[in-house]
Amino acid sequence: MPETLDLSGDVVALTAAICDIPSVSGDETTLADAIETALARSAQLEVLRDGDAIVARTHLGRSRRVVIAGHIDTVPVTANLPTSFRDAGTESEALWGRGTVDMKGGVAVALHLAATLAAPRWDVTWVFYDHEEVEAELNGLGRLARLHPEWLHGDLAILGEPTNGGIEGGCNGTLRADISTTGRAAHSARSWRGSNAIHAAAPILDRLAHYTAAEVEVDGLVYREGLNAVGISGGIAGNVIPDRCTVSVNYRFAPSATPEQAAAHVREVFEGFDVEVSDSAPGARPGLDALLVQEFVAAVTSVTGGVAGPKYGWTDVARFAELGIPAVNFGPGNPELAHADDEHCPTGQIRSCAAALRGWLTDDAGPDAGTPGIEE
Amino acid sequence: MPETLDLSGDVVALTAAICDIPSVSGDETTLADAIETALARSAQLEVLRDGDAIVARTHLGRSRRVVIAGHIDTVPVTANLPTSFRDAGTESEALWGRGTVDMKGGVAVALHLAATLAAPRWDVTWVFYDHEEVEAELNGLGRLARLHPEWLHGDLAILGEPTNGGIEGGCNGTLRADISTTGRAAHSARSWRGSNAIHAAAPILDRLAHYTAAEVEVDGLVYREGLNAVGISGGIAGNVIPDRCTVSVNYRFAPSATPEQAAAHVREVFEGFDVEVSDSAPGARPGLDALLVQEFVAAVTSVTGGVAGPKYGWTDVARFAELGIPAVNFGPGNPELAHADDEHCPTGQIRSCAAALRGWLTDDAGPDAGTPGIEE
Repeated sequence: MPETLDLSGDVVALTAAICDIPSVSGDETTLADAIETALARSAQLEVLRDGDAIVARTHLGRSRRVVIAGHIDTVPVTANLPTSFRDAGTESEALWGRGTVDMKGGVAVALHLAATLAAPRWDVTWVFYDHEEVEAELNGLGRLARLHPEWLHGDLAILGEPTNGGIEGGCNGTLRADISTTGRAAHSARSWRGSNAIHAAAPILDRLAHYTAAEVEVDGLVYREGLNAVGISGGIAGNVIPDRCTVSVNYRFAPSATPEQAAAHVREVFEGFDVEVSDSAPGARPGLDALLVQEFVAAVTSVTGGVAGPKYGWTDVARFAELGIPAVNFGPGNPELAHADDEHCPTGQIRSCAAALRGWLTDDAGPDAGTPGIEE
Repeated sequence: MPETLDLSGDVVALTAAICDIPSVSGDETTLADAIETALARSAQLEVLRDGDAIVARTHLGRSRRVVIAGHIDTVPVTANLPTSFRDAGTESEALWGRGTVDMKGGVAVALHLAATLAAPRWDVTWVFYDHEEVEAELNGLGRLARLHPEWLHGDLAILGEPTNGGIEGGCNGTLRADISTTGRAAHSARSWRGSNAIHAAAPILDRLAHYTAAEVEVDGLVYREGLNAVGISGGIAGNVIPDRCTVSVNYRFAPSATPEQAAAHVREVFEGFDVEVSDSAPGARPGLDALLVQEFVAAVTSVTGGVAGPKYGWTDVARFAELGIPAVNFGPGNPELAHADDEHCPTGQIRSCAAALRGWLTDDAGPDAGTPGIEE
């Protein structure tokens, strides 16, 4: 008998209710069951399920389909459940507890609108998925993209990750490479017979220390890059001149560059050294030059007061970009409080995000009245 | 029934015989038994044993006692036993096989003289010990110094380690220290929120790369120092800005400096960084300014044609230095062939080292005739 969720009532109460069903990655079934059961009560929705991922979609014959997605898992609970309200009834009222920011506020907004928007302006595919906070290969959205790509089709994807009610578009790409030096081993008592590979790595660290990361404008957003050592190793024993030293670097590059261009840049920075790229993933352009996206951004930020900016981390937005679907993050909560012990979300943001999304999905002109200039 | 060794015959044949009794560290008992049995046949020797270390000494009432020591273990055999002769009968005749250089040539010279010098000029303590090629705490000479320090008393110690028939005196000291940087961890997608401890280590490697090691004259020998990174580590994960980086350095310093002075030098080189000294051992002065040593050096090098120079590695010479006994290395074989698969020793060197040591220990003037100016 799954827990009963009231999707049609207050969206803040719904947020608290789904936070109070713990769903640490790998343990999402109870919450997934409750979501599936609650969504099945809405006649306008077709409800699908794969593992602990639930997909609910309208079939209203609209000219556009929007995918609105959120993960239902959280990082481990640290004595911050059940949820509690602070400053209740004031302007700074907030809901405290695990998941309030990342990202059950966004999930509650989506569940609430899925149940209460009987005839949205666009067809909507609501996606609630598992295993986002763990290894990429377990990610529920990735699994849906592999096993049921047709469930994710759409013209625009909105991920409800916390953005303080603003829009975060696209994401940087990421590349890892090992920069190595070689030397000649020798006993450290007669070091002049060897050649020290760690000493030879001095210019690598110098170049990193003096590297100035670029800021790159893509589709109107400025992406800040970064090139950093994330590891260094060398040395065999306390009395041996090391014959190898490896510096592992991570390059976060703007979505206007391909992984190949990023690799070429890293090779250029470390010219003269052995550079081996170990893995890379492309970024995602914010897609804010697409008219549908521009219109969405204008509609929701005018309600929430949020601003449009870049997303730095590699997020599930890139999974939609790989499917050719422009995607942005939009949700309540301060992303810097994600995973924090003092995770909490202003209840006003949850309400304003719900109102903004409802406004865009219903539109003054009525369902599917069309917006001038939406043609791509 | 131990193997039978003929100590009084040809010293080269004796070298081959003891090489052909394998005695890799930890497996010295067969050879130790053979040595003990053979030495017990000499009436002038008191034979003592601790584990696989054998000590044999004269009690002739001489005014000086000389300690002549060698380890009987070897590094592992690599299909280089039994021994064989190459270029037999020519000037370049050599004995090939494990232990011929390090250091059964020197051990054979000592065993041969122990058995055949019935009335040496000085009282002699002959020491044959185990476990030199492994961890320092297992070292048989160290064990004797702890358990039976009186067995090692003397006015001069000669270690029969390979020196090509020359004299290697004293040894450098050694000090290990960790030089660390700290930073501030952050997600590498937002690296500007952190502070990269690996980048901060760039000046440490720069200083090492540009460091000029000193050459220091001590008691007439020039010691070459060295300051080297022997390890480096830093980094937590591929997406985290590292908050700590540690460079482990090894400083080999001339025996004229104390470990405290060496530590002060390292702190000065890495001023501005966190320096933690993890261990250190003092060097040993060559003691070549002591008259007894000078006379020994002159006597043996005039026979072998070898030269006097410094020892760079930390050797068991330092154990005698700690007991207040001047000590030098003197033995047949090229030290660069120690531990090598093609380890081999010119038989002429074995004979000339035996002749040189015999000459010094018998002296034209007769036993204990005294040498002008030996008073210290």
